[in-house]
Amino acid sequence: MDDALVLRNDDGAVARLTLNNPAKLNALSDAMLAALHSALDEVAGDPNIRVVILDGAGKVFCAGHDLKEMQAARNGKDGGRAAWLHLFERCSAVMARIQSLPQPVIAQAHGIATAAGCQLVATCDLAVAAEGTKFGVNGVNIGLFCSTPMVALSRNIHRKQAFEMLTTGEFIDAYRARELGLVNRVAKSDLAAETLEFAHTIAAKLGSAVRIGKQAFYEQAQMPVAEAYAYTGEVMAVNMALEDTDEGITAFLEKRKPSWG
Amino acid sequence: MDDALVLRNDDGAVARLTLNNPAKLNALSDAMLAALHSALDEVAGDPNIRVVILDGAGKVFCAGHDLKEMQAARNGKDGGRAAWLHLFERCSAVMARIQSLPQPVIAQAHGIATAAGCQLVATCDLAVAAEGTKFGVNGVNIGLFCSTPMVALSRNIHRKQAFEMLTTGEFIDAYRARELGLVNRVAKSDLAAETLEFAHTIAAKLGSAVRIGKQAFYEQAQMPVAEAYAYTGEVMAVNMALEDTDEGITAFLEKRKPSWG
Amino acid sequence: MDDALVLRNDDGAVARLTLNNPAKLNALSDAMLAALHSALDEVAGDPNIRVVILDGAGKVFCAGHDLKEMQAARNGKDGGRAAWLHLFERCSAVMARIQSLPQPVIAQAHGIATAAGCQLVATCDLAVAAEGTKFGVNGVNIGLFCSTPMVALSRNIHRKQAFEMLTTGEFIDAYRARELGLVNRVAKSDLAAETLEFAHTIAAKLGSAVRIGKQAFYEQAQMPVAEAYAYTGEVMAVNMALEDTDEGITAFLEKRKPSWG
Repeated sequence: MDDALVLRNDDGAVARLTLNNPAKLNALSDAMLAALHSALDEVAGDPNIRVVILDGAGKVFCAGHDLKEMQAARNGKDGGRAAWLHLFERCSAVMARIQSLPQPVIAQAHGIATAAGCQLVATCDLAVAAEGTKFGVNGVNIGLFCSTPMVALSRNIHRKQAFEMLTTGEFIDAYRARELGLVNRVAKSDLAAETLEFAHTIAAKLGSAVRIGKQAFYEQAQMPVAEAYAYTGEVMAVNMALEDTDEGITAFLEKRKPSWG
Repeated sequence: MDDALVLRNDDGAVARLTLNNPAKLNALSDAMLAALHSALDEVAGDPNIRVVILDGAGKVFCAGHDLKEMQAARNGKDGGRAAWLHLFERCSAVMARIQSLPQPVIAQAHGIATAAGCQLVATCDLAVAAEGTKFGVNGVNIGLFCSTPMVALSRNIHRKQAFEMLTTGEFIDAYRARELGLVNRVAKSDLAAETLEFAHTIAAKLGSAVRIGKQAFYEQAQMPVAEAYAYTGEVMAVNMALEDTDEGITAFLEKRKPSWG
Repeated sequence: MDDALVLRNDDGAVARLTLNNPAKLNALSDAMLAALHSALDEVAGDPNIRVVILDGAGKVFCAGHDLKEMQAARNGKDGGRAAWLHLFERCSAVMARIQSLPQPVIAQAHGIATAAGCQLVATCDLAVAAEGTKFGVNGVNIGLFCSTPMVALSRNIHRKQAFEMLTTGEFIDAYRARELGLVNRVAKSDLAAETLEFAHTIAAKLGSAVRIGKQAFYEQAQMPVAEAYAYTGEVMAVNMALEDTDEGITAFLEKRKPSWG
């Protein structure tokens, strides 16, 4: 299955999903999005997996949509409209799936992460970048403003910096991406190893608590403050009621390591 | 009253409220939250107070909730649920009271500010930290995701950095906290003196204008832009109608100091 | 027309609008706001203009409202209320017009940008500042909290930093403004030339795509994520259907420059 569009390799409780179409710079074609959505669904249902890493095979992380495929749709009866709407719906559904996934997802970016590829990085809960990585929402350069990527980007970084990237189409490097808030860490030398270490740090936590917390994170972000507190107070009570949380707190008070299932 | 859970010491128009249970790292127990809420209510009604500083006695600012108390609730008929819901409601009410307080509140953090202690810092209007202070939302380490603290944290700093703190449980230092937006200033040497100076800078402004502005700040933040402008336009007109504002502007135009009551 | 309150000078597809009342530090008087609104409307309808620069004549960019005019209104029957409400409505309408303008607007700030002048910078899509520029929302110093400016400011930078500026009335310099997210770039030497170069970079893009993107940027920012994706997916399909976008993508795939009307 090395020719599958999305590969999966597990390392303990960490699943690594790899966009695997290096000849096409891992373009988010309709087929690639379908494969990624399936892989995410599979991981979501796997009780052994606590953290997911998303990376790309070959020289780059992801260069956005498959422009040839999008152009081919112009031959359709409606000039392409239905195909494009379908594509953006599928793409948005993948983005939503990443955030609704019970496990945290870490983007591991290298080479370039542009347009919908940059959107993927912005959408993942966390991101690590190799030193030389270039980030951009550069669709404007070919006359296609990155309107869907900006939904994710503008929820990661400040407004004026997002607007500049969107209208100039210019790239920012990994350090600037970290400064702006688009990535968490810049790997010093071994990108895969440092991302994996990051993943294992989180995988070592109580999975059920992380699951509860991730869901609440995105829910509360869209609520007025008073509503967010009413909601998260309930979430905390549910979390407290977990047997493993009882053990976690008891172990802490007894100054020993928790013994979690 | 040196054994009160919350101490109050005024310095002119600045009230200093001190969490005073150093043996318990100023844990936000049910009693501590009740004492803090009362102290805030008292300050709110005091026309002489223009700014509030919130600090902690002993080695740390605040280490979050009282875990022993929370564990004890498990013996209840419902396994603790009602007690926990009550605790989180009380805690959220204190957070809301800080933002509804007519006076600005400055968190003065030292040592550690973790879990609900970090939430306190995030909730205060402003924050100053001593150089060595560690900030964290580290409940995940004991299996209790910091879901209520993240309501405040994620409204202070960018999304990915908040998510990292919440899922890794790792600490950040005072300089990183300043960089991310969680604190305003890092004290160079004398934390209390530098925080007090900050407070007096604000206390020297027209109190009624600051009061009007603080309330509007949080109201408008939750509105769509058009609504926010309609609302703040009205707020500005009310502010303009104050006699002291007339005097403030007149003094400015006459290049003299205002003579405020 | 050198004595007009707002001057317009075009450089190719870039229109430069200049606040032109240097003796009054380009105060946003009722007349200035009316002139600016008209100039913006005129530019909006000009198909040759792709980017707008907004700057100020004389020593400063803009020092906020015209305090003398605001004070004069106190002589009115209602003590000034109707005049002030009118002024803030007009001002908010100008801010809304900047964001609803089909073309990106770049604030070119120098000297000082205070109160409603700082609001102008925050409201523009992009901003470049000269090295010595001071930014502040310092109305609090004269007893008039910058409640309308904070609507724009608090949507540009983090909460605690906005609150500090609003309550201390202190200035920040251009580098700090860039760090916080209030401006995009600090000009090294020639402010006007560097801003113009920035403008021409964006003006070289496909105007119709930028227009579509700018509108979508502010619309989606106020929507929940799911709604934002449904909306921007539709926006992308409309963008794809443009003949010039077809040419832009085709040219890219054929490794040549697009030939845009």
